[in-house]
Amino acid sequence: MAHSENGTSRRALLRKAAVIGSTALTGSAFRGASASSTDNLPPNVPEWMKVPGDPMGSQPYGSPSPFERNVVKNIPRNLPQYLSASGRTPLQDLDGIITPNGLFYERHHAGVPAIDPAQHRLMLHGLVERAMIFTMEDIRRFPSISRIHFLECSANPGYKRPYGKTASDLVGLLSCAEWTGVSMKLLLQEAGLRPEAKWVIAEGADAAAMTRSIPIEKCLDDAMIVYSQNGERLRPQQGYPLRLILPGFEGNMNVKWLRRLHVAAEPTYSRDETSRYTDLMPDGRAREFTFVMEAKSIILRPSGGQRMSETGFHEITGIAWSGRGKIRRVDVTFDDGKNWQEAELQEPILTKALTRFRLPWHWDGRPAIIQSRATDETGYVQPTLAELIAVRGENFFYHNNAIWPWRIAVDGEVSNAAND
Amino acid sequence: MAHSENGTSRRALLRKAAVIGSTALTGSAFRGASASSTDNLPPNVPEWMKVPGDPMGSQPYGSPSPFERNVVKNIPRNLPQYLSASGRTPLQDLDGIITPNGLFYERHHAGVPAIDPAQHRLMLHGLVERAMIFTMEDIRRFPSISRIHFLECSANPGYKRPYGKTASDLVGLLSCAEWTGVSMKLLLQEAGLRPEAKWVIAEGADAAAMTRSIPIEKCLDDAMIVYSQNGERLRPQQGYPLRLILPGFEGNMNVKWLRRLHVAAEPTYSRDETSRYTDLMPDGRAREFTFVMEAKSIILRPSGGQRMSETGFHEITGIAWSGRGKIRRVDVTFDDGKNWQEAELQEPILTKALTRFRLPWHWDGRPAIIQSRATDETGYVQPTLAELIAVRGENFFYHNNAIWPWRIAVDGEVSNAAND
Repeated sequence: MAHSENGTSRRALLRKAAVIGSTALTGSAFRGASASSTDNLPPNVPEWMKVPGDPMGSQPYGSPSPFERNVVKNIPRNLPQYLSASGRTPLQDLDGIITPNGLFYERHHAGVPAIDPAQHRLMLHGLVERAMIFTMEDIRRFPSISRIHFLECSANPGYKRPYGKTASDLVGLLSCAEWTGVSMKLLLQEAGLRPEAKWVIAEGADAAAMTRSIPIEKCLDDAMIVYSQNGERLRPQQGYPLRLILPGFEGNMNVKWLRRLHVAAEPTYSRDETSRYTDLMPDGRAREFTFVMEAKSIILRPSGGQRMSETGFHEITGIAWSGRGKIRRVDVTFDDGKNWQEAELQEPILTKALTRFRLPWHWDGRPAIIQSRATDETGYVQPTLAELIAVRGENFFYHNNAIWPWRIAVDGEVSNAAND
Repeated sequence: MAHSENGTSRRALLRKAAVIGSTALTGSAFRGASASSTDNLPPNVPEWMKVPGDPMGSQPYGSPSPFERNVVKNIPRNLPQYLSASGRTPLQDLDGIITPNGLFYERHHAGVPAIDPAQHRLMLHGLVERAMIFTMEDIRRFPSISRIHFLECSANPGYKRPYGKTASDLVGLLSCAEWTGVSMKLLLQEAGLRPEAKWVIAEGADAAAMTRSIPIEKCLDDAMIVYSQNGERLRPQQGYPLRLILPGFEGNMNVKWLRRLHVAAEPTYSRDETSRYTDLMPDGRAREFTFVMEAKSIILRPSGGQRMSETGFHEITGIAWSGRGKIRRVDVTFDDGKNWQEAELQEPILTKALTRFRLPWHWDGRPAIIQSRATDETGYVQPTLAELIAVRGENFFYHNNAIWPWRIAVDGEVSNAAND
């Protein structure tokens, strides 16, 4: 059971942190006097208080501080980035659960189309009573819904050594946003499903014509036809002006630039559900239609590429998520799984959304390996990599949701222990 | 009691909408054939599917579609915008409850300072056991919390005719984000409060040295020292690298570019809590320290400056919020308050956060006035403007939380009925 922020566990954490903090932070009391440039430090008035700041209107659509210029999408340089391309969210630099739209991960198979929303149409046809074509204005007329959900590529990470250095290298094909759109069920009801309708084949208006088959049960459950993300209209990289959101299902089924929904009795067996996005088993057979992203977690601070500045109090924080519902708990181990400590979960805990976890920790300066393990509301527990391999063999690539170990060295350097 | 999304009320809404939708949208079935340019319409393959799209990496930090270039901050042209300036969120163009950082409202009194976070310090002194100075790194070491809260200027709108045309003109000094930072209580505990500590005076590092006094009860309740907004670091316009968030309190107390917390026995009576940000009463006395933003709501679609395209089904949607806690219900009237219909509230309903409401409506084409009314969990009901004036007289300017009427004309034009 997750602890509420006002519960006993929280109060205990704060008492502990305050004590530890006093020790750890004593050095900071009036430390300013010894800094290299003291002009701007209290009680002095810094330079930027002595002149008027930047005027209004220089940025009608804002951007981050120039001091944050390195916080950008993480574009792997060791992969070809033409047509089939990916840019990852810098998860280790972010807080909370919402991914800002400028840093939302992107993955596309034939570039990002520039679509005029006035010309865009969604065609709904096949095993329906009334085939229909919707303008964006038509779609906007329907009753709307908003929900916060994560979105994750199924190869996040792929099972392939060596793994990257940072949390973003590893699982940066993952983001979370508030989506607004129309219930897919409502659109299907509008068209009238025929009894033999079992699948809906979604097609994107990109040059890859990304095509995926979705079981009718999902379409009639929580599937959404989405036009907005974190309040504003979708970004081009996320499917402007219209996309599918299938909460908890692997990223590329959430078809972007959505132009067609073909209701059918069978799946279409497109390239992206046969030659790709299947899981090769030890016996050489491939598991198809493995849609759901199982429970997973990652520690973001400390994480690979970071450095622990000093011993003493540190907060361990990260994110957990499950395609099957809410996160029930997250545990952290410092001794390779012999003992687990339950982390605190930040409210609100939402279904099929990122959940932020936190655990206070006193680092004594010795080498350590830290790992987090998510459990979701179905009782499913995130496996170790060894447990995954025992079931799937060494052939699989997608749906690697293993527990991830970060190694902390004596000098405070943090690295990916799975690459050792 | 708000209806849950899975409750009876929701199912009834969808049945109704589907029926209404069928009528209203029949015209859209294969409407494509009659459009002016048919080349891009189904079943044709549009131009943007025939060539590769934009490559990865052209935008390491993304931006909206060029087709959304008019969705920017609303900067009033009838106000001087030098030093004291404001840019409003285009609320009527947004969905859900999260405001994207690029469109978050801004209000500053001496421009936006460009602060180097490595040089920035927070001084905590006065009636404490241990005066302290924190670097940003020190602040980041503390246990963190994340919460979704609205932020609103107390002059949103000021009581001053004529009012603007759009929802943004009226209440666009309002936004909502997920904030991450440190509990202010924890920092104060770190320094050790002395018994006579009753107020904390916060000072910003802008050229206005924005200074406000905060009762110690709020500081020990839900006040936060914040460094991140919607996942990424604060934008310069929102206080980079550090600001206060006082959930539910008027915007300018949430001091940006926070450099100093002075713990005191009395408030400081700064310019911005005496000559400004007070409420002048009918008898000529001014109410000071009116901190809390009371319950309020606004319909965003349809709203001023928009046009109803045709009769038939339309969803009425808007936002409600209260500085005292959660929104309990929102009602909509079409007959100047004789009858009220309860709107549906989108989950999750969070304390001191925007709450999205929705109500299906069949517009018969006749002139109409639509108004929404929020009730919060304390039982407080949003007043009419007449009720506000009866209590406050005509001298007040801040804290106008009146019910707002939109007029819909026969031709579908929507205008601000309070300007009639």
